Amino acid sequence: MATENEFSPKEWSFKGDELLVRSSAVTVRGVLDKLMGNLNPNDPRPTIPLGHGDPSPFPSFRTAPEAENAISDALYSAKFNGYSPSVGTLPARKAVAEHLSRDLPYKLSPDDVYLTSGCTQAIEVILTVLARPNANILLPRPGYPYYEARAIFSNIEFRYFDLLPEKDWEVNLHTVELLADENTVAIVIINPGNPCGNVYKYEHLKKVAETARKLGILVISDEVYYHLAFGKNPFVPMGVFGSIAPVITVGSISKRWIVPGWRIGWLVTNDPNGILKKHGVVDSIIAFLNISSDPATIVQGAIIQVLEKTKEEFFLKIVNLLREAAETCCSKIKEIPCFACPSKPEGALFALVKLDLSLLEDIQDDLDFCLKLSKEESVIVLPGLAVGLKNWLRITYSVEPSALDDGLNRIKAFCLRHAKKQ
Amino acid sequence: MATENEFSPKEWSFKGDELLVRSSAVTVRGVLDKLMGNLNPNDPRPTIPLGHGDPSPFPSFRTAPEAENAISDALYSAKFNGYSPSVGTLPARKAVAEHLSRDLPYKLSPDDVYLTSGCTQAIEVILTVLARPNANILLPRPGYPYYEARAIFSNIEFRYFDLLPEKDWEVNLHTVELLADENTVAIVIINPGNPCGNVYKYEHLKKVAETARKLGILVISDEVYYHLAFGKNPFVPMGVFGSIAPVITVGSISKRWIVPGWRIGWLVTNDPNGILKKHGVVDSIIAFLNISSDPATIVQGAIIQVLEKTKEEFFLKIVNLLREAAETCCSKIKEIPCFACPSKPEGALFALVKLDLSLLEDIQDDLDFCLKLSKEESVIVLPGLAVGLKNWLRITYSVEPSALDDGLNRIKAFCLRHAKKQ
Ligand SMILES: Cc1ncc(COP(=O)(O)O)c(C=O)c1O
Ligand SMILES: Cc1ncc(COP(=O)(O)O)c(C=O)c1O
Repeated sequence: MATENEFSPKEWSFKGDELLVRSSAVTVRGVLDKLMGNLNPNDPRPTIPLGHGDPSPFPSFRTAPEAENAISDALYSAKFNGYSPSVGTLPARKAVAEHLSRDLPYKLSPDDVYLTSGCTQAIEVILTVLARPNANILLPRPGYPYYEARAIFSNIEFRYFDLLPEKDWEVNLHTVELLADENTVAIVIINPGNPCGNVYKYEHLKKVAETARKLGILVISDEVYYHLAFGKNPFVPMGVFGSIAPVITVGSISKRWIVPGWRIGWLVTNDPNGILKKHGVVDSIIAFLNISSDPATIVQGAIIQVLEKTKEEFFLKIVNLLREAAETCCSKIKEIPCFACPSKPEGALFALVKLDLSLLEDIQDDLDFCLKLSKEESVIVLPGLAVGLKNWLRITYSVEPSALDDGLNRIKAFCLRHAKKQ
Repeated sequence: MATENEFSPKEWSFKGDELLVRSSAVTVRGVLDKLMGNLNPNDPRPTIPLGHGDPSPFPSFRTAPEAENAISDALYSAKFNGYSPSVGTLPARKAVAEHLSRDLPYKLSPDDVYLTSGCTQAIEVILTVLARPNANILLPRPGYPYYEARAIFSNIEFRYFDLLPEKDWEVNLHTVELLADENTVAIVIINPGNPCGNVYKYEHLKKVAETARKLGILVISDEVYYHLAFGKNPFVPMGVFGSIAPVITVGSISKRWIVPGWRIGWLVTNDPNGILKKHGVVDSIIAFLNISSDPATIVQGAIIQVLEKTKEEFFLKIVNLLREAAETCCSKIKEIPCFACPSKPEGALFALVKLDLSLLEDIQDDLDFCLKLSKEESVIVLPGLAVGLKNWLRITYSVEPSALDDGLNRIKAFCLRHAKKQ
């Protein structure tokens, strides 16, 4: 075999792309990998993963049998082995339009729905479409770092507005108005919230829409956790306010059906006034999907049955599980002096907890906390810095209930062990 | 409901992206849609689609039962509902590495394999990674226009080298050397060929690798039609020559298993000398996959069985079907005076046919031919201009055999009807 030196060219002219490395540096996955790398291999206890957002490995969170059978039916029909149109198959778009219209004051048309490879690709699509020189976008802090990653990649400046912990993580609309300028194209909200575990009230969402209208920007509403609400506020889709300002909803079946590995989601235009079409956004969405890969056609074939046949019991079971897990989590947090949870979780899969470092002896910050917790207790939780909020922790409670108890007990033991002696 | 004028903002500040529209204008899908739009709705005969590259709707081309069962097994195991690592799951990468290594003089490691959403996403990944100011890439003419679309999107200049019809569509290596300069990063070859239906000889591939080495560029080898070879030349993967110049192979199960709707493929580094790693290409691939959606985890779970369990009979059956279909196609072409097929198809799914317009009365060019054929005979074939070769036609013979006969007879009738009277 020839080695490089044998008859090497003067030089190889290709190289990697530094921008890519920069874009991907901000992912949650990277931080979690670091924590996993810090586990003590000699700890005989099982590792308790409270850092991620995927309950699918836990038996209690297995998806609905109707959803599994839907895939099998699509598969053996042999009707979904071929390419799909780049926007998605019409029957699947129709099914999603009908499904989402149930929560809206108007009916979506299949043309409002674009099927994507999870909510992830929907975010990719809209950030790519909105990119243009000098454009900026308003992102929540804390938030979901994939927006930052994609904004960096597409060369869109991002500006943070704060979510207010003492107001159930509502958007600080005052800062939103101060941040926006003539190059601002959109505001992103995540509802139910990651990492905050909150659910926005109807009135607050309306105000967000009115602010967007005033600023002439569109609202990107990330509703990947839609209907995972178990507190005082019901889930209200932002699309309800699509006639105030154009709303692009991004979502998927990943969380509600607990099948993120199936990779199907949607980008939906909630825009009864046709503003997105008029401004070329719709054409650009279609164009970008034309040069992108599509969600698997068998899953597109299945989604019709998934949406229609899944029984109400399944959703109730999952929401009850989450409610109980959140309760367990909150009562344990109250027993831990260095933890505070200003806003009780009411949706999604997470509790966001504030660390009081002054009560701890040898912990520098949230990352240090998580690294030591990983090493000493084999429990993984996400440091707030990974989602834009230093010295907070995001604790996922959507794991098998027995594992949750175990994990929270270990966290408590860790905190007591590291508490400042008085 | 509020209308736009009621309390409209001064102006909406977002807009679409013209570059996207430009990138996606060059797809095959667009041309085919145009031809479909020209069908005569009053023709009682079935439409014969000889324009696409997807035999999956035809009963004779149904995928292997082992492949379908592999998906079902993965599904009901409930082990593949969660997120996968962004490079793909390790067992699936291992299975693909072993599968592809069978045709190579060295063994690929799982780290050489990145799982993608079809070959399409693999192309997206490598073109994104190679983009940098002033970079250019060498593309075959005729070729597969997705490369052009992605190059436009990533702002990579492309330069065409010709494939030589009288030499079984070999690369004109002389022009390759003339075209390349210090900003050239890669050369793309497609083998077996789309749209040419050719299969490259071992010796020719070696020369391509040597030319790439001389120029200091990498070879992107599109092997999405791998092993669909039924003529004099066996399929040889370009990776065989990975120690001459670094080779990135892109491929998928879409064509060989006839399941393009399953959306799983791969990008593979064939680079025993580690040059891609040294030049940052590997890190950039990983970084870009970190901010991209993944192929469905259930399909990743299934691919292990798909690759291991599919019986040799299935491949033989498909290759025989293709050989016979190509024969049928060629003998009919010989009966049509205005058609010439300088190079008999020996691989992939297509015959590339030269139109002699001087023998036709009222046909302007290839597009005009295809539009009239669609209207008068309800047969769709792809005009060569869609793949970079004006006044040629790409005829797909991978359809149900009875439909192929019918379609070819209609094409012949059309040509005779439009022949110049002598
Ligand atoms: C806020 C938010 N948006 C989008 C996603 C991605 O969703 P999907 O799995 O459907 O791609 C996630 C996943 O955790 C998320 O938390
Ligand atoms: C040359 C070539 N490359 C890539 C592809 C895309 O393959 P996939 O379906 O695996 O994305 C095709 C599809 O027709 C093709 O012809």
